[in-house]
Amino acid sequence: MNASDSIQRNIKLILEYDGTNYHGWQSQAGSGMQTIQETVEKTLSLLSHEEARIFSSGRTDAGVHALGHAANFHTRSAIPAPAWAPALNQLLPYDIRVLTSEEVPAGFHARFSARSKIYKYRILNRRAQTALHRDYAWHVNLPLNVARMRRASAVLLGRHDFSSFRGSGCSAKSPVRTLKSVTIRKSGDFIELLLEADAFLQYMVRNISGTLVEVGLGRFRPEDMVKILEAKDRTTAGKAAPPQGLYLLSVNY
Amino acid sequence: MNASDSIQRNIKLILEYDGTNYHGWQSQAGSGMQTIQETVEKTLSLLSHEEARIFSSGRTDAGVHALGHAANFHTRSAIPAPAWAPALNQLLPYDIRVLTSEEVPAGFHARFSARSKIYKYRILNRRAQTALHRDYAWHVNLPLNVARMRRASAVLLGRHDFSSFRGSGCSAKSPVRTLKSVTIRKSGDFIELLLEADAFLQYMVRNISGTLVEVGLGRFRPEDMVKILEAKDRTTAGKAAPPQGLYLLSVNY
Repeated sequence: MNASDSIQRNIKLILEYDGTNYHGWQSQAGSGMQTIQETVEKTLSLLSHEEARIFSSGRTDAGVHALGHAANFHTRSAIPAPAWAPALNQLLPYDIRVLTSEEVPAGFHARFSARSKIYKYRILNRRAQTALHRDYAWHVNLPLNVARMRRASAVLLGRHDFSSFRGSGCSAKSPVRTLKSVTIRKSGDFIELLLEADAFLQYMVRNISGTLVEVGLGRFRPEDMVKILEAKDRTTAGKAAPPQGLYLLSVNY
Repeated sequence: MNASDSIQRNIKLILEYDGTNYHGWQSQAGSGMQTIQETVEKTLSLLSHEEARIFSSGRTDAGVHALGHAANFHTRSAIPAPAWAPALNQLLPYDIRVLTSEEVPAGFHARFSARSKIYKYRILNRRAQTALHRDYAWHVNLPLNVARMRRASAVLLGRHDFSSFRGSGCSAKSPVRTLKSVTIRKSGDFIELLLEADAFLQYMVRNISGTLVEVGLGRFRPEDMVKILEAKDRTTAGKAAPPQGLYLLSVNY
């Protein structure tokens, strides 16, 4: 049986990656920059001898990390679904790992089938600089008031027009998203924000995180969050938090 | 007032570093390998215009990290003690940061004045491979029994001849050390071992960690730890745990 005779199967991958050395997830034709999508597609092609096209649950920006990025691809290869993860890991660079591979129904699409996504934003909040966390957290060297940040974050819960937190290059048709949960936890010098939404606009987590940090620093009041959200104007919110603190945690189907 | 007229002062530094790209702390004459000591001494010399010699609380191996490595140096430079940290950070590579700099009495020596040191050993215990933690934890892909590891670790507490956990290149006069505390904590997929001792022999933390992992895997029984310790023979204990899971946490004076 050759490849063209065999059944096409749909394989779902869960990926962990260290985004430090990549220009984000999405392939950028002609840019000459290395992306995670490109790297994974090339490796898939090597194994399947097919032209690989991978569908992603979303894009991550340059420097952003993932602990559970979901993606899927169609293949006529005879490689059994669970064998893709170890086979890919043999060939992929060490900063991209496939955690699991499984067969999913033909209609499954990593992006369109997703019910929600969870992102984590990690802040190192201390005066001293850091060597170990420089690529894995945002170092904020003035003290943050976590209680204020929590009050401000609660304003964002629910279904809203998030235009004030939307990147200018965002191609989404609607700026309306449902923020299902937002949790802010402190552990030692680290503050972690966890956000779950049905989907996110471009830079939405980084723009929300940056704005919450300005609330924590006292530059905005928690009540200002209402006005910022209602303004539907990006210029009213705080600056985007830098990419290295952001982690795509999981995608729920 | 020129440098030779001024008073010699003793400055203590606390350093954080990412050991991934270094061949450990100690300078290796003629080896051509980059070490943390060398990198810091060169930077000190640039600032002080003196030949810098730094005294360290200890050596760390290639790939080992530090969150609070203590060191000191003598200088006649007019740079105020607290200004050394920001000045050094301007010139040092990003994977070495000076957290604090302060003046200490002339007799202070980072190694000989130390009362105890605390190391952390970090294990990622899950089946799936890891992209983000590959240089910052030991990935053990079979399940570890933490309760067994705790029972075995308790045997090591107190003053003992630690020859069974001593590296063959160790230059210490005596193999007797006092292990003041050992704590094993689990958080999600991570297991952290915290060890405090008056001082450590070469590879002692890595050899203890490697042996405790073998207990956790069921290759040794917790009771075997008594025989291993009493044997005073390195070949009776487990293999050394790899360097990337090891962190020098702090040195107490």
